[in-house]
Amino acid sequence: MRGAVPRDAGAVPGDVGGGPRDTGPVPGGYRGGSRASGRWPWGMWAVGSPQGAALAVAAAALVVAVAAWRRPRPVREVLFFPCQPCCLEALLAEASPARPCPCPLPRADTSLSRLVRRLLSARRSLDLCIFSFSCPLLARAVHLLHRRGVRVRLVTDAECMGLQGSQIGRLRQDGIQVRHDQHTGYMHHKFAIVDRRILITGSLNWTSQAIQSNRENVLVVDDAECVKPFLEEFERMWEEYNPTNYIFPKGSK
Amino acid sequence: MRGAVPRDAGAVPGDVGGGPRDTGPVPGGYRGGSRASGRWPWGMWAVGSPQGAALAVAAAALVVAVAAWRRPRPVREVLFFPCQPCCLEALLAEASPARPCPCPLPRADTSLSRLVRRLLSARRSLDLCIFSFSCPLLARAVHLLHRRGVRVRLVTDAECMGLQGSQIGRLRQDGIQVRHDQHTGYMHHKFAIVDRRILITGSLNWTSQAIQSNRENVLVVDDAECVKPFLEEFERMWEEYNPTNYIFPKGSK
Repeated sequence: MRGAVPRDAGAVPGDVGGGPRDTGPVPGGYRGGSRASGRWPWGMWAVGSPQGAALAVAAAALVVAVAAWRRPRPVREVLFFPCQPCCLEALLAEASPARPCPCPLPRADTSLSRLVRRLLSARRSLDLCIFSFSCPLLARAVHLLHRRGVRVRLVTDAECMGLQGSQIGRLRQDGIQVRHDQHTGYMHHKFAIVDRRILITGSLNWTSQAIQSNRENVLVVDDAECVKPFLEEFERMWEEYNPTNYIFPKGSK
Repeated sequence: MRGAVPRDAGAVPGDVGGGPRDTGPVPGGYRGGSRASGRWPWGMWAVGSPQGAALAVAAAALVVAVAAWRRPRPVREVLFFPCQPCCLEALLAEASPARPCPCPLPRADTSLSRLVRRLLSARRSLDLCIFSFSCPLLARAVHLLHRRGVRVRLVTDAECMGLQGSQIGRLRQDGIQVRHDQHTGYMHHKFAIVDRRILITGSLNWTSQAIQSNRENVLVVDDAECVKPFLEEFERMWEEYNPTNYIFPKGSK
């Protein structure tokens, strides 16, 4: 039996109290035997050794690869219109499960149903900036989010919101915050931002005519480089169109 | 002096004709001495050894890192309108160098100048799909590309192209291929594809009113997942709106 080794002796673990397989230290820092002898050459992986550095890089590469594999794919969706009419009752019904809808329309996967799904994925906020908003189905989706407690803010064009069929008045009555432009040009944007993370933008005004008859596009992305400028534009408009900031022209009463 | 070793003796380089530093083979395949002895342990990096595998992974990680570093950054540009008036003469002049423009407008970096730069970066093709096109400056940019030999194709809306101020007739006269929709809904897209690689899309119609007075957005991206569907939509429309495919309604002459 070997003698006890003082704690401050600077001994390297593995040198102390070796069992039957312990072969003792090897000159040059190479500890332990070969693989063939049943020992793993742990010593060669010591910090500072070239092998240790290679192992560290390999481990880092593995971590990066796993992280890249686990990272959610970036959102990239392109929707084109017009799209065929479809029944959205299953998506928009507030009761769960929804009662079967008696309408004859198919429950197809269309550009409109995909757009509604994207909107309904909002959990915290929906910032809307829509030039013309007269589609009752999309108004219903926005209303549903509002009822679920999602913070909905809506910026629109002053001229368009006064047209017949506009859904803006109804949404305002429901308690949704709405602001509109005050200048001569149009507030012509047509974009939505879901949870300050997903941007939905394109040529599509939220009207039944546009959805059912026009050639239109909607792009859905979640790159911060795209979303952030739109968020900033929204906040700029939200502040600029605040009724408390409204400047009445001279001579008006 | 050592004797010559036959070529077919299966000797391992390093075992043969060792100089003064040669310490001979080491049991367990560990060839050469330690770092301290002035020898590098090349043998431990042999293919199939754990060290060799780690080195290979580290080298692969390095190659990937270098490739990622050298890869061009993805295109992500967001432009907002209205923008201040600016002089684009330096960009649009066909002579090089352009004569100094006597106009009092600043040569500022604006959303419009950035949009024009993106368009003028086209080397092979420009596919345009614009609902309303009445801005003379943008028409000049398109005309310039056509003169440079870039293949320009333009899809537009039948109703809008007939309005006063439309640039479509002039572009057609210049020899640019134009096709328009034939159905009751609007061809309401507002996008351009540069060299089948860069997508420019948004709410902006190409009118001076939109550029100077409206709140508008333009998004510039080059992700294949975004560009490809727009390219396919363009080709669909280009084929669908081919005058040779036009179906005359019954009773028309």
